[in-house]
Amino acid sequence: MSEKRFKYFFEDFRIGMVIEQPGPTLTGAEILEFARRYDPQPFHSDEEAARRSIYGGLIASGWQTVSLAMRMICDAYLLDAASLGSPGVNQVRWLKPVRPGDTLRLRMSVLEARPSASKPDRGTVLHRWEVLNQKDEAVMSMEGYGMFRRRNAA
Amino acid sequence: MSEKRFKYFFEDFRIGMVIEQPGPTLTGAEILEFARRYDPQPFHSDEEAARRSIYGGLIASGWQTVSLAMRMICDAYLLDAASLGSPGVNQVRWLKPVRPGDTLRLRMSVLEARPSASKPDRGTVLHRWEVLNQKDEAVMSMEGYGMFRRRNAA
Repeated sequence: MSEKRFKYFFEDFRIGMVIEQPGPTLTGAEILEFARRYDPQPFHSDEEAARRSIYGGLIASGWQTVSLAMRMICDAYLLDAASLGSPGVNQVRWLKPVRPGDTLRLRMSVLEARPSASKPDRGTVLHRWEVLNQKDEAVMSMEGYGMFRRRNAA
Repeated sequence: MSEKRFKYFFEDFRIGMVIEQPGPTLTGAEILEFARRYDPQPFHSDEEAARRSIYGGLIASGWQTVSLAMRMICDAYLLDAASLGSPGVNQVRWLKPVRPGDTLRLRMSVLEARPSASKPDRGTVLHRWEVLNQKDEAVMSMEGYGMFRRRNAA
């Protein structure tokens, strides 16, 4: 383990705690670039086809929104946390389209925090992550567990 | 709706059906590029820090694996399907690290297929997607619903 003094250990994630983080304003070029590489469905990867689709214009791949959420999670607290990783996430939901010009931000809420029964040096935190746009509409949500070291456990 | 004749309509997704799709061999440079943009945790974004981490070397962001899974889903069947989109996915699980040089492939299985009760032109399919490496180990799995138009419904 590194010598780094982290800001967030297991004990710092309290139920009901909320952290918000500003995020990027997405351009059409960035939407097209991600889509052509990872998710070339026409309404993500082709402006003309997107205009004719049920969305009436280009929308970001849901996985681009999730990837940008991960970046905001890193910037908000994860890079400064004694993280031991995550086994996965649940209930990824795309609630509204993300379009060129939309400005995203993240809201993390702590739903549960449980010390490990078997390993006294760590605990598990259940997070809810929401991505909001500039109109305060939730465009995406997901939930997931993270494991964190306890303070003074190292 | 487009005039395109799709290969896959709702009726073509039968319970137990499996589609496999070959995928890319990941380089260290590609892992670093994705991580620096979307998931700059040290074991994804810094070779030296990754060597000192519990993983003993660079591993891909779980969201890069998911994004590459989405590309394989598109190439395997989705771009040739009468898709009406997806509200989200459940149970994203990262089962094993993905490292430089790993070659990925996708396996999609149909778990459920239900005609819509309210809309006779469509139905919902529950998919399970697994990403396997060159040793046939599952490195990631997730489940999700997709909506598809019925054949001759247009």
